[in-house]
Amino acid sequence: MKNKELPLLISGTGESLNDIQHLTGFRAVSRVVLLKLENGEQHLVVPQAEYGRALKNARSSFVWTPEMLSVSSKNRNDIRKWISAMLAEKKIRQVHVMADFPHAYAMAIIKCGVSLDVISHSIVSSRSLKNPNEIRRISDSQQAAVIAMRSAISLIQRSKIDSDNTLKLGNHHLTAEYLRKFIARILVDHDCDGAGSIVACGQQTEAPHEQGYGVLKAYEPILMDIFPRHMTHGYWGDITRTVVKGRPSLELRRMYNAVRAAHDAAISTIKAGIQAKSVHKAVISEFKARGYETEMRDGLLTGVISCTGHGVGLSLHEDPIVGSDPVKLSCGNVLAIEPGLCYPGIGAVRIEDLVEVTSDGCKYIVPCERKFEL
Amino acid sequence: MKNKELPLLISGTGESLNDIQHLTGFRAVSRVVLLKLENGEQHLVVPQAEYGRALKNARSSFVWTPEMLSVSSKNRNDIRKWISAMLAEKKIRQVHVMADFPHAYAMAIIKCGVSLDVISHSIVSSRSLKNPNEIRRISDSQQAAVIAMRSAISLIQRSKIDSDNTLKLGNHHLTAEYLRKFIARILVDHDCDGAGSIVACGQQTEAPHEQGYGVLKAYEPILMDIFPRHMTHGYWGDITRTVVKGRPSLELRRMYNAVRAAHDAAISTIKAGIQAKSVHKAVISEFKARGYETEMRDGLLTGVISCTGHGVGLSLHEDPIVGSDPVKLSCGNVLAIEPGLCYPGIGAVRIEDLVEVTSDGCKYIVPCERKFEL
Repeated sequence: MKNKELPLLISGTGESLNDIQHLTGFRAVSRVVLLKLENGEQHLVVPQAEYGRALKNARSSFVWTPEMLSVSSKNRNDIRKWISAMLAEKKIRQVHVMADFPHAYAMAIIKCGVSLDVISHSIVSSRSLKNPNEIRRISDSQQAAVIAMRSAISLIQRSKIDSDNTLKLGNHHLTAEYLRKFIARILVDHDCDGAGSIVACGQQTEAPHEQGYGVLKAYEPILMDIFPRHMTHGYWGDITRTVVKGRPSLELRRMYNAVRAAHDAAISTIKAGIQAKSVHKAVISEFKARGYETEMRDGLLTGVISCTGHGVGLSLHEDPIVGSDPVKLSCGNVLAIEPGLCYPGIGAVRIEDLVEVTSDGCKYIVPCERKFEL
Repeated sequence: MKNKELPLLISGTGESLNDIQHLTGFRAVSRVVLLKLENGEQHLVVPQAEYGRALKNARSSFVWTPEMLSVSSKNRNDIRKWISAMLAEKKIRQVHVMADFPHAYAMAIIKCGVSLDVISHSIVSSRSLKNPNEIRRISDSQQAAVIAMRSAISLIQRSKIDSDNTLKLGNHHLTAEYLRKFIARILVDHDCDGAGSIVACGQQTEAPHEQGYGVLKAYEPILMDIFPRHMTHGYWGDITRTVVKGRPSLELRRMYNAVRAAHDAAISTIKAGIQAKSVHKAVISEFKARGYETEMRDGLLTGVISCTGHGVGLSLHEDPIVGSDPVKLSCGNVLAIEPGLCYPGIGAVRIEDLVEVTSDGCKYIVPCERKFEL
């Protein structure tokens, strides 16, 4: 459903800063305001101290400061005043805002007699359609992620299994913390920041956002999820591998094979024009065919505990979401495809890669082999 | 002015996640909802997949999932439904929200007949009062920042000035990019992420958030602003030094001495009970006494181009702001004190350290010597 054309007003923290970078190229580090008119004209309001940097970096935008908009010095730090001055300058009486637009700003605008129309789905939908330059930037980060993943896997490969099944590198235990730091160093060497990498072992893998801690063990799943953000341009990469040091149980091997097959099923389903949920369905079917059900056990969701994928770009998680909600895939979508299975007592297995959606399928942003038993 | 006691509702991205970590200890990585009742009871709503981790990590909170609140599976991803279900569960008809609360959520709540009261100043004011455990965490990150700063300064010290005034380390030019990566590696070694460090030289320093690029040069200000975030607990550090390789001009030396004196003036003014703006005033007076005025030149603000300081904790910039707005300092505030001067054509000089406000003054979180001419 197409919304009525209205000027679009963006301000706030979090996602709005990514929207503004997408539309102007300017990476704001403090609060700013962007007004995009129906004719495409963009007006960016930045703090006085950011004026020079914005003039230099913000493309196709008029750059304003609160001073230029005659915001009184008393109100110089009140973004609500910047917004109302900018709207008054352009004689705007009605605007679109995103769902995340701060409520306090909205109230201030309404008080000035401007009416507000919330857009539930991002009008900056062009964010999900990556141009070649953006694909290159995502590749930068994904390349770093793949190198870090390979190096981490080599390290686990080189480790020895101690008598109590713990992993050792020389005389030291191989811990999640050590491996996470090892990964972070490699990411830094490739101009990325990767503060949050997950290196979880055994039951820790059952909580999808558990970072992981302690000594890594043989015969248990070691799940590594590496998601670097490029320090300069801010685009993300995202990769996950699940490995086991030593011979995994039959149960774990079956689970791994199912996840790999589900990943293949997802990849071979993806192409421009199809519904994202058909990709998710392909994953669920593959699991069902192998007897893996998704159900509640003792109050915990087991089986497929998250959706199959998500867009990646200036945000690590952005549209389109590959789950059960309706959304059509398009050429230029970059998707993290990450099917997984999780059963308490066994742990979780997840495989994740980035692909670019094309007219007749998809292609890996940076291919990386899938290893399991090390 | 004290607000009427009402339940507090927190949700959204950005700052709200830090508020929720502050109140519950839980570091959310996806959207969650926190309802804090007048009696202090806390109710946290998390996605099903995060339930186990939240149960384990969220202190003094009841943990809910959308399923437990009987949100229909169709609406399982719609946070507005989580919020209305949680409010209905507790029969809440009126709530406080923060200024940043997403407008779309607010509209949905109002539609359910719940009235909303925006709190312009954070009701989670306890965030600005750090307990000893929080001070220790900030020290972790500040320690990393100080070590990285000292190492970066040593590297510049060891560099040689080439015939064209560029800096060389052995046969290679010393670039901002190289130094930033060198800093990031040290931060990683100390369990911190420091993606955004500023290493700017010469005129680049005039834009306060310019990251810096290219070959570093002698006789020009090199401004390094290092702000690591701890990978595990998420507290920030923040330090800035401005150095010059080789003998700086008299003009630059005078500026540096003024900034150092202003920093001293700020530090000796700070104590619990005083107004933050008296600290800012002490800085401005010190500059004025030395002939440094703040004024517009060719449309650019020159002199003092930002406020004197800000709180540091789970956010890099948080309350209290040390500028011209009225706010009283209290024991346990952790402040980044960063006076600076900036004049186009000369560049910027800034010195920044973290201090903890005490009843009779303040103390450095981690002391670090101030070097200028290298």
